[in-house]
Amino acid sequence: MHRQATNDSSAATPFGWIDEQSAQRRAAGLVRVLRPRAAESDRLDLAGNDYLGLSRHPEVTEGAAAAARHWGGGATGSRLVTGSTELHAELERELAEFCGFEAALVLSSGYAANLAAVTALAPHGSLIVSDAGNHASLIDGCRLARGATSVVAHADPEAVGKALDTHTGPAVAVTDSVFSVDGDAAPLAQLAAVCREYRAGLIMDDAHGLGVLGAGGRGAAQATGLAGDPDVVATLTLSKSLGSQGGAVLGPAKVIEHLVNTARTFIFDTGLAPAAAGAALAALRLLSREPERAAQARAVAAELHGRLTAAGLQAVRPDAAVVSVRAPSPDEAVQWAADCRAAGLVVGCFRPPSVPDGISRLRLTARATLTGDQIERAVRTIERTAPAGARTA
Amino acid sequence: MHRQATNDSSAATPFGWIDEQSAQRRAAGLVRVLRPRAAESDRLDLAGNDYLGLSRHPEVTEGAAAAARHWGGGATGSRLVTGSTELHAELERELAEFCGFEAALVLSSGYAANLAAVTALAPHGSLIVSDAGNHASLIDGCRLARGATSVVAHADPEAVGKALDTHTGPAVAVTDSVFSVDGDAAPLAQLAAVCREYRAGLIMDDAHGLGVLGAGGRGAAQATGLAGDPDVVATLTLSKSLGSQGGAVLGPAKVIEHLVNTARTFIFDTGLAPAAAGAALAALRLLSREPERAAQARAVAAELHGRLTAAGLQAVRPDAAVVSVRAPSPDEAVQWAADCRAAGLVVGCFRPPSVPDGISRLRLTARATLTGDQIERAVRTIERTAPAGARTA
Ligand SMILES: Cc1ncc(COP(=O)(O)O)c(C=O)c1O
Ligand SMILES: Cc1ncc(COP(=O)(O)O)c(C=O)c1O
Repeated sequence: MHRQATNDSSAATPFGWIDEQSAQRRAAGLVRVLRPRAAESDRLDLAGNDYLGLSRHPEVTEGAAAAARHWGGGATGSRLVTGSTELHAELERELAEFCGFEAALVLSSGYAANLAAVTALAPHGSLIVSDAGNHASLIDGCRLARGATSVVAHADPEAVGKALDTHTGPAVAVTDSVFSVDGDAAPLAQLAAVCREYRAGLIMDDAHGLGVLGAGGRGAAQATGLAGDPDVVATLTLSKSLGSQGGAVLGPAKVIEHLVNTARTFIFDTGLAPAAAGAALAALRLLSREPERAAQARAVAAELHGRLTAAGLQAVRPDAAVVSVRAPSPDEAVQWAADCRAAGLVVGCFRPPSVPDGISRLRLTARATLTGDQIERAVRTIERTAPAGARTA
Repeated sequence: MHRQATNDSSAATPFGWIDEQSAQRRAAGLVRVLRPRAAESDRLDLAGNDYLGLSRHPEVTEGAAAAARHWGGGATGSRLVTGSTELHAELERELAEFCGFEAALVLSSGYAANLAAVTALAPHGSLIVSDAGNHASLIDGCRLARGATSVVAHADPEAVGKALDTHTGPAVAVTDSVFSVDGDAAPLAQLAAVCREYRAGLIMDDAHGLGVLGAGGRGAAQATGLAGDPDVVATLTLSKSLGSQGGAVLGPAKVIEHLVNTARTFIFDTGLAPAAAGAALAALRLLSREPERAAQARAVAAELHGRLTAAGLQAVRPDAAVVSVRAPSPDEAVQWAADCRAAGLVVGCFRPPSVPDGISRLRLTARATLTGDQIERAVRTIERTAPAGARTA
């Protein structure tokens, strides 16, 4: 701002504009606060994404501990310098094999994996067709990519076809496999068909599919027969069903090689910490050995949905392990979630501006390890605290 | 691309365009390959960013292991949902206190911290003035931000003033505190003065300053007396001197609160894994107890620089712990680094396109724990393998 600016208004001090935004948030009841939790709690957590209950599994935590001891606290550099360990390579091999892809690349988060995949696969002159319900990290990937982005209606393969039809040159369609807010699955088979018709690539973010969908949790690509196809790329996070941290991109070897050479969030980022790689690898091996965990997570989700619906609440039929329940308004959603918490149940609460469609909801996650009693307790708590307008007529 | 496209050229298959780029990279000798390393090696590593030698310190690896056991393999959700633990809060308190800031926010990587800080502090209508030598993550932050970006000459406070003078409205100057390629320090005092003249905020990325600069490694902001000022924000990475993974933003409490409410790479990302938080916290406590580690890293860097310069090589005087040595050409830089590696010394090799100025160099990192013998061995290896053109006339 100009040197001549007056200095008596808060807007004229650096970061002064924040005060106004902060006041607006406060007035609108939209202030978010961090609530640090203890390691152990009597509260039942139906808000986290630990779908298989592996985050606290001793094999997983021991995998983290052993990797830290053996490899150190950090990777110490970019994967391209000194940050690539044999542990990363092992995790990449096993992830690719488990999910049925030729190759994999591990990054420091699922967010970074999405930025890497979208930016590297949408060069200058290309078109990205992006579902309106996509995760923030895919959206940021589109914004960082050199290609142009066309946002299309949610879960609408026809709209994807129309968008692709306008373009000459490389193109990709980008979609969550399971949308994080409502838990609905993308129409992957139809999307793949439309992409093939237009010779476009398909990038699916399988953050909520890995460990839940497909045979033994091998993910949405495996479930739809698309895994390993030369025009299909999947991104993963290691932070949900695998109970750790990190992300990965799976695809043809040439795509992975391309990412190694061009993806900025891979090249200019320190490699994933050994402990996180070790935990994810332990979780992956556990899941290979106990494939029924995936079906169990889906069964718990179906049961939650069935019982909430039976109680008159508007829950979206879950395609994976996320169960979304509509709330009549943002304020009532917040109150509902707070009442649940007061009653010992932690649920997610999504409301504007972090939902693209403006609909407020509670977001529950099914965990494979939930007991019948816990499900009972959760359903009763949600029912009992529901605002009047939450019930269908 | 149009349905009518012919399918006989590789460009007409999805991802077919990658083949051409890949061939170009191969022809130009610019292919990057991952070289997974073992946990133990006879090679001397002067390429990683483990400046204080803490990544393998038993207290740090034990900090990771203990945190994984106590808190689980992952944070299980966004910090705003279930991903905030008391461990994160503890790390934030101690980071803020150590570096002299009011508040801190921990994110999953330094990359994510930079995206968060720049995007959240450069709203629509604002101006970002960005140093031409800034790290990729700051650049991506500028590209994602709603504000306009003006890239100015490297380390040039006057150019920053000129850019700020053109703008009315909120503004921030963004700079690495220590530039990652050449290891030179930003003129922070002058930048802060110019920012104040124009009432702009200052964001410094202290990735290479934390643990190395300032009293006992308290970072560049402390070293320049800027820590805790209401118009100063620092970003950190936990992946270099603290030997772990993760990132943080430090600043006034109201700035941190603003990030909690608006920064997409914070809100829509799973919290940092407990093991990484535990390792970083252990490293931070160790550094508080053994403040001499910071000066030691700087002393090793000065010695490396002095001896390489005495040998006629063109090394940039290090302001922190990065020592950059010029190579006559990209090919010779690659060969030089390969010869070092063959002789048991791992050094970084920077060349186009990953250096903004087109200059190829070896990049060495000083580690506080290097012995005299190791320094001797490193210098002799670099000297012996140097291409003829690397020596000053
Ligand atoms: C659909 C989706 N993609 C990507 C991510 C980002 O993954 P991560 O948290 O591992 O960075 C998330 C959630 O965090 C997500 O829900
Ligand atoms: C100057 C600078 N900023 C930010 C980063 C990113 O930090 P991280 O690797 O923790 O994501 C790096 C290096 O990786 C860096 O050198």
